[in-house]
Amino acid sequence: MITVATAECFTHANIGLTIHKAAAGYEDFEFKYLFSDEDLKLIKNVRVLTAMFIPSIVGAEKLLDIKLPEPDYNYRYAKAYSEEKDLEVAKLMAEALKKKLNANISIGTTAGVGRGAICILTDNNCYLFTSDVYANLVTFENVKERQKNGIEKGIKKFLEILKREYF
Amino acid sequence: MITVATAECFTHANIGLTIHKAAAGYEDFEFKYLFSDEDLKLIKNVRVLTAMFIPSIVGAEKLLDIKLPEPDYNYRYAKAYSEEKDLEVAKLMAEALKKKLNANISIGTTAGVGRGAICILTDNNCYLFTSDVYANLVTFENVKERQKNGIEKGIKKFLEILKREYF
Repeated sequence: MITVATAECFTHANIGLTIHKAAAGYEDFEFKYLFSDEDLKLIKNVRVLTAMFIPSIVGAEKLLDIKLPEPDYNYRYAKAYSEEKDLEVAKLMAEALKKKLNANISIGTTAGVGRGAICILTDNNCYLFTSDVYANLVTFENVKERQKNGIEKGIKKFLEILKREYF
Repeated sequence: MITVATAECFTHANIGLTIHKAAAGYEDFEFKYLFSDEDLKLIKNVRVLTAMFIPSIVGAEKLLDIKLPEPDYNYRYAKAYSEEKDLEVAKLMAEALKKKLNANISIGTTAGVGRGAICILTDNNCYLFTSDVYANLVTFENVKERQKNGIEKGIKKFLEILKREYF
């Protein structure tokens, strides 16, 4: 069993929840179109330990035992970083989660102002990338579009990496 | 700000994610029909610190610093308890999360064989109840129906309790 854990912000735990639904054999789920028939077979060897939505700094720090940088923007509701800081924070979250749960693959996501960041950490490599959509968490501009793109891109990359490194 | 945190299993983090979408002012979201106009106003005073989907024992134990009982059923994928044990575990998860994040309200959910359990812990009270739908996680029978009922019942009770205790 290949274990997977995610700590997500702008993707709302949907990367982890989608991998879980595919792995547990759900017949229908929202992002099923991202999985080939081969993917749906291989993913039966995956087990999701947790899929966390963590919008707050306090939540990330206390649940993952890390210290995050100060936010770049004032936003009453959640942490809001620049893209540069998001890249750093997504990696910090993925690293802490991988260590804490001893998972084979961990995924961290966060997005404030910019394209946001996704980090996929395997037993051998670190993949760090942004979504393709610029958005602004503070004004809400394009936030939904960035979220959908981040979920799709995150799952696609995860499947590519899973096949290349584990099968 | 009234802070809320959830650790969910059979409800797939949807109780926490839905409260977050309402609190952050999303115009449309799946379970919006559960919120009255008054609810949508009051919920602006709520802030979700985390909404966690935790199907695994190892995930719950390591992220929440608790010890869970042995599962009652063999299920390759996740923990599977009887309803009696689910009631115990939902409470353990809510208690640990409330303490860890110092949240005003915490919610724990889990469901194996039976109706599953939901625990809502406020600063003053503990509400522990089942869903209305019997299902079996091991055979997958009725699992989707129980999930929908658990999400709806959990959110409805949360809104009732929020208004009674905090406004």
